[in-house]
Amino acid sequence: MSISQPYLLFLGDVTDPLSAKTARGIHQWRPNVCVGQLRLTEDTVSLGLDDLSLEQAKEAGAKTLVIGTANAGGFIPKTWLSTLILAAEMGFEIASGMHQRLSDVEELSALQKAGKTTLHDVRHFDDALDVGNGKERAGKRLLTVGTDCSVGKMFAALAIEKALQERDIKAQFKATGQTGILVQGSGISIDAVVADFISGAVEAISPAFTDHEWDIIEGQGSLFNPSYAGVSMGLLHGAQPDAMVLCHEIGRQHIRHLPHASLPTIEATIAANEQAAQLTNPNAKVVGICLNTSSLAEEDARELCAQWSERYQLPVTDPVRFSVNSIVDRLV
Amino acid sequence: MSISQPYLLFLGDVTDPLSAKTARGIHQWRPNVCVGQLRLTEDTVSLGLDDLSLEQAKEAGAKTLVIGTANAGGFIPKTWLSTLILAAEMGFEIASGMHQRLSDVEELSALQKAGKTTLHDVRHFDDALDVGNGKERAGKRLLTVGTDCSVGKMFAALAIEKALQERDIKAQFKATGQTGILVQGSGISIDAVVADFISGAVEAISPAFTDHEWDIIEGQGSLFNPSYAGVSMGLLHGAQPDAMVLCHEIGRQHIRHLPHASLPTIEATIAANEQAAQLTNPNAKVVGICLNTSSLAEEDARELCAQWSERYQLPVTDPVRFSVNSIVDRLV
Repeated sequence: MSISQPYLLFLGDVTDPLSAKTARGIHQWRPNVCVGQLRLTEDTVSLGLDDLSLEQAKEAGAKTLVIGTANAGGFIPKTWLSTLILAAEMGFEIASGMHQRLSDVEELSALQKAGKTTLHDVRHFDDALDVGNGKERAGKRLLTVGTDCSVGKMFAALAIEKALQERDIKAQFKATGQTGILVQGSGISIDAVVADFISGAVEAISPAFTDHEWDIIEGQGSLFNPSYAGVSMGLLHGAQPDAMVLCHEIGRQHIRHLPHASLPTIEATIAANEQAAQLTNPNAKVVGICLNTSSLAEEDARELCAQWSERYQLPVTDPVRFSVNSIVDRLV
Repeated sequence: MSISQPYLLFLGDVTDPLSAKTARGIHQWRPNVCVGQLRLTEDTVSLGLDDLSLEQAKEAGAKTLVIGTANAGGFIPKTWLSTLILAAEMGFEIASGMHQRLSDVEELSALQKAGKTTLHDVRHFDDALDVGNGKERAGKRLLTVGTDCSVGKMFAALAIEKALQERDIKAQFKATGQTGILVQGSGISIDAVVADFISGAVEAISPAFTDHEWDIIEGQGSLFNPSYAGVSMGLLHGAQPDAMVLCHEIGRQHIRHLPHASLPTIEATIAANEQAAQLTNPNAKVVGICLNTSSLAEEDARELCAQWSERYQLPVTDPVRFSVNSIVDRLV
């Protein structure tokens, strides 16, 4: 999946700031690829970008209209259709992370068939893949892993990519989920591939390379999440990481959406990931811990990171509040 | 996926006995559901069943024409089409484990749409599934696990089902691969579901039950196979097995198709499977080992089983040569 940049970020008519999380993530991590925003009403959430019409965005060089909002059920609202169809007619690519496929909208599908547009349904994946083979390949890889889903694995990966680049170390973020794919303009939604091809998909996302230093691969799920551990396991084998960064949310009471399932300990998470990863990379090691400490006061968070750093003999940080410099120090 | 029984086994025009493995497996494990065989030529492999025409099979009560042969590439040969189309017109269901879908054959698809037939492409799975949740559910479950693919996990599961039934203990085989699905007439090809739903699919295959004693779930792949471990991990969590039987082939030099990937030790395979399985069933234990000893003389095989039984303090047998009684003794 390869999405042309730069983007015009489409915010539709959503008024709940949380619903614009995807657009905000793209803008935060790739400000240079966002030429502006398109809002359908005055009340629509704003990212503070220039409000552009399709014509103005075209003139400013935008290649793809990115639907940067989620809504209940993942369906494309009727109120958005005329704008999306007009964009396709004007030759914009359209990218969406929603459940409903753009290609299921008849008019959009017809425009794609006519060669007017390219539709990117990043939550889905239909192309052919090879099964993974676990063969050693050139290049160094870092993978973010977690105690659970939604603990900041994408954020940590992007923060590490940025910190490496700031030190003039060439690093490339590799996306495995829909927001990550929209941020990067490429990647595969790893939980959407056919089960046989999980590790093969990651081998395709991060093939052998010698032109840069690090691939920073976005993790998914957790080996301890009874819904999704198969995805996490295949991702781990396909990534054959040299380094792993463990992500965890302070204060989470149980596995997300599953009150009966308790969270693993940090020790168990490190041990299980290192053991499994060593199948395809005997040197795989956890090299740091990224915490989401938003439930703590900043001073308490800082103290906790220091304590854990002592306890686990690893750099420990909150990438949102502090920085990932201590982890990057360990990497280089 | 639910396939009506009894079956007419279709052998096409294949002359290589190995190509009729699926048909042979169905006949071996479910002789009562096979009313006969249909061969297109004199030279075609025979299972020793009655040769029946479609008309004769219909009269004898056959409900489904089962394609029991594999051929290079997994495509449906042109020479089979007229027979398949006639069968569909006569109201047979058709079941196939080939890569090419029956529903991609225009005439067959049209007959299905017209309500004349039901097509079962058991290698594929398109229905909606829920994600797994790992909640404890009623009933006892046994899962076969392995050091690799193709080490006899389906055979071991069917042998254990049979041995339990011979002791009047109600057991049900639960299929997760194409041959198993054809044998049982139901199941889900677990490596064909979307990655997010692996454990959910197994929860659907083996839901809570109180009307029998054991579900015997067919395993797939291995936690140590870098191509497919994600499937094996999700299967393990979804199965939440009380008991696991480890399957292994004596003399295998490396992971199948991957000369660079070494086989795990028996100790490591037991430890990794027990550790991962305990996420959804804290009592999960390996209770026996099934070996494929076909590379050894029978006497040597018997001695090896005795030695290993001592070494691992578990019943160890070759289910093809000997029986699974020692394992079933441990279960009951």
